[in-house]
Amino acid sequence: MKALIYKGPGQKALEDRPMPDIQSAGDAVVKITKTTICGTDLHILKGDVPSCTPGRVLGHEGVGIVEKVGSGVASFKKGDHVLISCISACGRCEFCRKGMFSHCTTGGWILGNTIDGTQAEYVRIPHAETSLYHIPKGVDEEALVMLSDILPTGFECGVLNGRVAPGSSVAIVGAGPIGLAALLTAKFYSPAEIIVIDLDDNRLSVAKHFGATHTVNSGDGKAIEKVMEITGGKGVDTSIEAVGIPATFVLCQRIVAAGGTIANIGVHGVKADLHLEDLWSHNITITTRLVDTVSTPMLLKTVQAQKIDPKLLITHRFKLADMMKAYEVFGHAADTKALKVIIEAE
Amino acid sequence: MKALIYKGPGQKALEDRPMPDIQSAGDAVVKITKTTICGTDLHILKGDVPSCTPGRVLGHEGVGIVEKVGSGVASFKKGDHVLISCISACGRCEFCRKGMFSHCTTGGWILGNTIDGTQAEYVRIPHAETSLYHIPKGVDEEALVMLSDILPTGFECGVLNGRVAPGSSVAIVGAGPIGLAALLTAKFYSPAEIIVIDLDDNRLSVAKHFGATHTVNSGDGKAIEKVMEITGGKGVDTSIEAVGIPATFVLCQRIVAAGGTIANIGVHGVKADLHLEDLWSHNITITTRLVDTVSTPMLLKTVQAQKIDPKLLITHRFKLADMMKAYEVFGHAADTKALKVIIEAE
Amino acid sequence: MKALIYKGPGQKALEDRPMPDIQSAGDAVVKITKTTICGTDLHILKGDVPSCTPGRVLGHEGVGIVEKVGSGVASFKKGDHVLISCISACGRCEFCRKGMFSHCTTGGWILGNTIDGTQAEYVRIPHAETSLYHIPKGVDEEALVMLSDILPTGFECGVLNGRVAPGSSVAIVGAGPIGLAALLTAKFYSPAEIIVIDLDDNRLSVAKHFGATHTVNSGDGKAIEKVMEITGGKGVDTSIEAVGIPATFVLCQRIVAAGGTIANIGVHGVKADLHLEDLWSHNITITTRLVDTVSTPMLLKTVQAQKIDPKLLITHRFKLADMMKAYEVFGHAADTKALKVIIEAE
Amino acid sequence: MKALIYKGPGQKALEDRPMPDIQSAGDAVVKITKTTICGTDLHILKGDVPSCTPGRVLGHEGVGIVEKVGSGVASFKKGDHVLISCISACGRCEFCRKGMFSHCTTGGWILGNTIDGTQAEYVRIPHAETSLYHIPKGVDEEALVMLSDILPTGFECGVLNGRVAPGSSVAIVGAGPIGLAALLTAKFYSPAEIIVIDLDDNRLSVAKHFGATHTVNSGDGKAIEKVMEITGGKGVDTSIEAVGIPATFVLCQRIVAAGGTIANIGVHGVKADLHLEDLWSHNITITTRLVDTVSTPMLLKTVQAQKIDPKLLITHRFKLADMMKAYEVFGHAADTKALKVIIEAE
Repeated sequence: MKALIYKGPGQKALEDRPMPDIQSAGDAVVKITKTTICGTDLHILKGDVPSCTPGRVLGHEGVGIVEKVGSGVASFKKGDHVLISCISACGRCEFCRKGMFSHCTTGGWILGNTIDGTQAEYVRIPHAETSLYHIPKGVDEEALVMLSDILPTGFECGVLNGRVAPGSSVAIVGAGPIGLAALLTAKFYSPAEIIVIDLDDNRLSVAKHFGATHTVNSGDGKAIEKVMEITGGKGVDTSIEAVGIPATFVLCQRIVAAGGTIANIGVHGVKADLHLEDLWSHNITITTRLVDTVSTPMLLKTVQAQKIDPKLLITHRFKLADMMKAYEVFGHAADTKALKVIIEAE
Repeated sequence: MKALIYKGPGQKALEDRPMPDIQSAGDAVVKITKTTICGTDLHILKGDVPSCTPGRVLGHEGVGIVEKVGSGVASFKKGDHVLISCISACGRCEFCRKGMFSHCTTGGWILGNTIDGTQAEYVRIPHAETSLYHIPKGVDEEALVMLSDILPTGFECGVLNGRVAPGSSVAIVGAGPIGLAALLTAKFYSPAEIIVIDLDDNRLSVAKHFGATHTVNSGDGKAIEKVMEITGGKGVDTSIEAVGIPATFVLCQRIVAAGGTIANIGVHGVKADLHLEDLWSHNITITTRLVDTVSTPMLLKTVQAQKIDPKLLITHRFKLADMMKAYEVFGHAADTKALKVIIEAE
Repeated sequence: MKALIYKGPGQKALEDRPMPDIQSAGDAVVKITKTTICGTDLHILKGDVPSCTPGRVLGHEGVGIVEKVGSGVASFKKGDHVLISCISACGRCEFCRKGMFSHCTTGGWILGNTIDGTQAEYVRIPHAETSLYHIPKGVDEEALVMLSDILPTGFECGVLNGRVAPGSSVAIVGAGPIGLAALLTAKFYSPAEIIVIDLDDNRLSVAKHFGATHTVNSGDGKAIEKVMEITGGKGVDTSIEAVGIPATFVLCQRIVAAGGTIANIGVHGVKADLHLEDLWSHNITITTRLVDTVSTPMLLKTVQAQKIDPKLLITHRFKLADMMKAYEVFGHAADTKALKVIIEAE
Repeated sequence: MKALIYKGPGQKALEDRPMPDIQSAGDAVVKITKTTICGTDLHILKGDVPSCTPGRVLGHEGVGIVEKVGSGVASFKKGDHVLISCISACGRCEFCRKGMFSHCTTGGWILGNTIDGTQAEYVRIPHAETSLYHIPKGVDEEALVMLSDILPTGFECGVLNGRVAPGSSVAIVGAGPIGLAALLTAKFYSPAEIIVIDLDDNRLSVAKHFGATHTVNSGDGKAIEKVMEITGGKGVDTSIEAVGIPATFVLCQRIVAAGGTIANIGVHGVKADLHLEDLWSHNITITTRLVDTVSTPMLLKTVQAQKIDPKLLITHRFKLADMMKAYEVFGHAADTKALKVIIEAE
């Protein structure tokens, strides 16, 4: 089969690989119909993710058709149309029982990281029972590719942790795909203000189109003043960090209201300053989270009920054979205006 | 009347002052029977609290007898035996309605800070209706002095925010009065482990006596290893910062388990490092809080029901006339082994 | 001034009355601009509310202009444009501190019940500080009349207590004004299904127009089967009782899913059967609540942000002089298709 | 092997049976070391549980040694010392993911009900991964028999659902083993009052010994008055129903404070009156629950940390060979003063 292989920092190739097979009783093999590329894949390619070693098939998102299942899999059978979760979860360990699938002792984020992933014609999914989801009839496959990772990430790490509520004010720092996923899912709770902050006017106009009530280009260094003006000097109830660098995390601290929440989504490579000299008395909450995908059943229902349109995030479409070009487009988002790209595997 | 006056950085004096009087309809004047000294008073004396200007009567804790009330006070009358909250709260503003009394727009921590305080024979209490509490019959007055500030602070900022739960593991970094107050109130929830970390062996032995299951002297730089050993390598569910310096806040980050909570109580004067490069994916929660004293009614019930013995915190007793000496003893706690000192005003 | 007076069971009259005046420091007198009639007023007129005695000015909803304030009122002054809450709350007592304004020991639902109400040119509002709300500029006064009672009631008792969530299923039993208020505010949380059940096809078509995903006329006795069909045999996550009779409360028990919630809004005059022989093992929650109006600030923000259009509930408009006719129309809602009627007081 | 067999209403026998074997990949077979008898077993023997058919091995509680495991079981192996949960849970279905193990679509309460149970030398445990728990070293086996059912039932259905809190007031109606389990676990949260109500003075004295602050013999029909006197006329914050008949459920309604919670544990055979004519406006919550045993890991930690002594519940001990006598003693608890009886299987 064809698969996109990580060849070491800065290198990747579309190569032929043997088809994966069942390795343990809980496995399923899924024939990929559609997959996508994540910002995390770019991180791997930069060499920033040491757990992912050269030779690995990348990708942790996708939908497909079950090809075969192990003896311990009862809920899925060959031919089932399924959504693949980016998080593999045993459902049994101490962490899974707390709903922290991301920290599953024999799972977590392993797909396209420590085991071969979804940017291929076939993929082996461990713990299939708790890592695959039946796709309801009539739901668009492309929309569901967004439910493998980006929507639960924006929702769980940003919106749920950020306690977005009716009438509240929300700032989302970063209008990349993940910030926009937070925006789309924040709307579930009818906040009064959703302020999106970024440096890229195109992405800000997309945010506006997606439902941001205000957009702020922080390029002039006046983001704090603007947010304070919008919020009558109070700051926001919820501040969502969707970039992953110290400067944006500090910005979140400057714009959060007393009693508010900073919900971190960003993947951080270095430490950041925490201004406790100001915040110690501000009754704030800061949360971090690797997506658990425990909200996937809830999100599936919202897609079915048309409470959200995940396809808004899709800007480009490619065949698996054009995978190298898909990476090229996705990797130059500022120029190509790419958000999420769909890869058709067949 | 006699009152302890802040005379500017490094200076204080016991002086004669006119008795306070009712200034607005919601005020009460209370004749102090017992008060105490807080670490914050020492901060003021160091000149670290610019909102507190020279000439101020210090003190924000105490119990007493109502001397007179304004026309708008219905729940209290002359002669009532009352507990004074360190936080004055109108009960009406946006913050008070959310239970954030600490951020009351016309109150908050003002006693002994921006208005005259309790280290005197009499004190004026604004917003008396929501800032005084009737003392139930038969409850020891001394015990209740601990309910003005230290117990709600340890409980709200440390234990409630830290989500201490039956069977959980708790680390308290700092065994001063506030850390010990967190320890005493953490026991309400029957955690399996309460690990107290400090540099002072005397305070650690007090912690043990108060119910710590483990104590760690961090002087050898091995606190992290020791906590990991106690918790089977997982870290603690709740990590309570009760010192207020960067090093201890960082220690809390190193010992908190995935999915755990860092509850900050400490008053911080400078920023601290937040190791997001590790924590971004650890599903942790960090909270800050200035005590709201919204738990005072609950704490009063626990004292009445003898679920806690706040008098354990009291090590020394003085008369108001000996206030200067009381400060001397409290200010040299490492030598005097002082925790909380009781000042009898009459 | 003109006022609508309860004259005993079955009797009412529009009469001249002396203007109300300040009676205690916390009072305000408000000149009514717009008020409305509540189903509860009809209950009083039937003689079902013994606490309301003949001679009482009815009404507990409305907006107006502050005419005068007592000495203890700091947040409001003559000329302020205000929303009147149906619940008077001191903000200080044990219940108010828990957010249970409805059980305020010196307030609660007293307007138009145990003290004179809002169906008049002027009304005295006790505990004005915590019972009036400033009307933001640019918000339609008529919309806000719906925030005195009906919207917080539907929201707090039905939607909040019912834990409506994104993607969840909700049934609302009863499509009168209060059920429709629950419907409008349930939409804040993006549930997948909102099933409205009633006997009146007109009200069901209104419900559909307001956003119900399904409507069920229960006249054929098959409501349970229909709800089960819509929910794939599982029942609903949230079942909201908005009628107040045993039959509808039992219906809620029959259609709630395992793990679900029955949120009662209805005013019940008699006991109802609770089928514990079925429900004891179904992990359900039942809640009751008299509206606390603690969500009024949140609701004001949602109206300002146009997340809800309360004016949808208004079907008729009258002058205060035509109050008797307004009652006639509101009292025959099945014929007149009245939902809420606006009474202009000037 | 020897096993206690349900032979139809009113009949049981200790018979020889073939040893159970692995039937599916997720099964384990456990050699029972200790088991016990539950009130539910008596219900079955009365013919009240139609799902349990004649020929069934009774029992759903116990500890033992793993004898063999299916191919899909990774966490347990022959020789492991284990606690058996009364609830079998797949950990994967819609309900298990919500923590509602009791409603597992392929599990729930099946042991000693629809499949053979634990009152035997060996038992087959389906879904072993999520239905067995490793017994920590040094923990007394007898104490842990109480963790199969009775302690999680009292804790989850009574204490957690009842939201017992520090300083709160709790009434437990029914001082049988399950009410006493609620009492022991309520103490985790340091409530101010625990009032236990029963008709049996012996059980009330046991309750007192276990930590009840007040006991009320309701035989004189004055339980309501007594509870109101104890609580200053307010009623209790939490009212736990641990009997399962209409009269006790109604008593709970009469003694619950405004804003309080009625947590039902009792197994009800008939409907009960719900006095909505009083309660509709009292802001109360009523919960029902079949134990989910999701708190078992938490409870294990509290036992290890000696925060609870489950052995207090054990009054009698028998060998499996004397099973008939054990039932005799347990079935005549009023005379024998039996609470829980331990059956040694070897």
